[in-house]
Amino acid sequence: MRALFLDGSQLTLRRDYPAPAPASGESLIRVTTAGICGTDLELVRGYMGYRGAPGHEFVGVVTASSTPALVGTRVAGEINAACGDCDFCRANLGRHCPARTVLGILGRDGAFADYLTLPDRNLIPIPASIPDEAAVLIEPIAAACEIFEQVALAPDEKILVLGDGRLGAIVASVLRAHGYAPVIGGHHREKLAALARLGLKVEAEETLRPGFDSVVDCTGNPAGFARAVTLVRPRGRIILKSTAADNGALNLAPVVINEISVIGSRCGRFGPAVAMLDEGLLDPRPLISARYPLDDGLAAFDAARDPRNFKILLQVA
Amino acid sequence: MRALFLDGSQLTLRRDYPAPAPASGESLIRVTTAGICGTDLELVRGYMGYRGAPGHEFVGVVTASSTPALVGTRVAGEINAACGDCDFCRANLGRHCPARTVLGILGRDGAFADYLTLPDRNLIPIPASIPDEAAVLIEPIAAACEIFEQVALAPDEKILVLGDGRLGAIVASVLRAHGYAPVIGGHHREKLAALARLGLKVEAEETLRPGFDSVVDCTGNPAGFARAVTLVRPRGRIILKSTAADNGALNLAPVVINEISVIGSRCGRFGPAVAMLDEGLLDPRPLISARYPLDDGLAAFDAARDPRNFKILLQVA
Repeated sequence: MRALFLDGSQLTLRRDYPAPAPASGESLIRVTTAGICGTDLELVRGYMGYRGAPGHEFVGVVTASSTPALVGTRVAGEINAACGDCDFCRANLGRHCPARTVLGILGRDGAFADYLTLPDRNLIPIPASIPDEAAVLIEPIAAACEIFEQVALAPDEKILVLGDGRLGAIVASVLRAHGYAPVIGGHHREKLAALARLGLKVEAEETLRPGFDSVVDCTGNPAGFARAVTLVRPRGRIILKSTAADNGALNLAPVVINEISVIGSRCGRFGPAVAMLDEGLLDPRPLISARYPLDDGLAAFDAARDPRNFKILLQVA
Repeated sequence: MRALFLDGSQLTLRRDYPAPAPASGESLIRVTTAGICGTDLELVRGYMGYRGAPGHEFVGVVTASSTPALVGTRVAGEINAACGDCDFCRANLGRHCPARTVLGILGRDGAFADYLTLPDRNLIPIPASIPDEAAVLIEPIAAACEIFEQVALAPDEKILVLGDGRLGAIVASVLRAHGYAPVIGGHHREKLAALARLGLKVEAEETLRPGFDSVVDCTGNPAGFARAVTLVRPRGRIILKSTAADNGALNLAPVVINEISVIGSRCGRFGPAVAMLDEGLLDPRPLISARYPLDDGLAAFDAARDPRNFKILLQVA
């Protein structure tokens, strides 16, 4: 099959990549559409030392399965493949299972390929109301929804989303769909203008003033955290949403002095994200900047690195 | 009057230092005993760029006051002198007042001197049941009690106190007095042995294994945070108790991946700390390694830097 393959920081298109074989309890999925995420760009920069096919945002159709009823179903899939048997799994927190593999990130080939495998229990059928180009974004929408599982935001919470990239845009959109009025702070004038046209509140990063109850760091670089520390109020919280390959030089003294809470936040459950899309609370399609066929996957990565773009999709089937 | 004076990183004993004049609403306090804390050592290394008399752990007697009934009273004092009128002050969070001065740390001469001043409302009378050498440790005990105001520990919370210094010893002692069974992890064999003799659970830092629900970082250096990240379980919490002058190179990716909460924690209210001592729930006196007269203040700082020592006191009056 075709697959984008990452070895070190070398990404290539392979046409002879072996198709994955589903293990017991797993399904084989024909990928229809996949999305490129900031984490994928970081993987290419060396984050996680990953070797394999990247890609973890996808929609596809089940072609073979340990659960025959799933065959032919259009699905998205939670990306953490857990053991199902440890303390975390028993507490319904398989996304923290220490023995997990993670689709396209850790020990399991991902979605920038014709086929992928995932455990049957990870799959979630997509209602006909949700088109592929929205369904492919269920994973980052679920990651944004994770915030509500971790922290109790006040009804009038003053929220800053730091970073005007694809993740910031999705997080702010999800917050707005839940009735909050976040400000997106960013560096890119054109992107801020585009986000403003979608009805989001935006502000140039350099004019932001301190005093936010919560700052969601979606910048994807260590400087974002340092900036968040200066913008959150004492006793406020910083929600860390992005991971990066780089180390940053950080002084944690202001976190102590101002008694800030820093909450790492990663993947979320897919159910609430599917429900949001099914109920029409959110339409992420305006955030799609371009789509490329899988054969042009390297050009798609270049486009995803272009700071003028939001979401880049790969059309696989 | 006499005072230890810090200018840049130059600490000297002055005999002609001007005595502070209490402003309206403030008291003048004759210092009896003061304690040297890790923050004081960091101030000498350049933390906060402080210039003045350091010292914020003290017990003393009020010699003049805007509240005449206080004169002659033996007191400890909360170290943040707040405006009393801002949103934080009105929410009973004067320790986060943006206009505050902080005794011996920020804009207000401190306790390593014959006299200091504080607002009357910061002072708390010390019951006769509490001897000076215990009362002088009310400030760090209150800082340890702050943890209970910020986080809800489970009854069987698996807690690691990282750092076998004075702060770690006090935090672990306070946790134990509240019914928890923290492990102190440290590098100093003699200190760990001394803490074990006090009935605390100790373990050599290098044999610690991951999986703690909460890790309290009392190491006072950036490497402590990085180590805490490796020892806390996924979805666990790190409570940051120590501040340092240094920047550390940190990668926050594991905080995101494991959805760790990092809680900055600084000063606490004095009431609960006084109550603990008054009720005999805690006796911090075994943690006192030595006491020096104020005239030997520079030698006292040297002793406080010696990793074999816990708490060093300055006898002022």
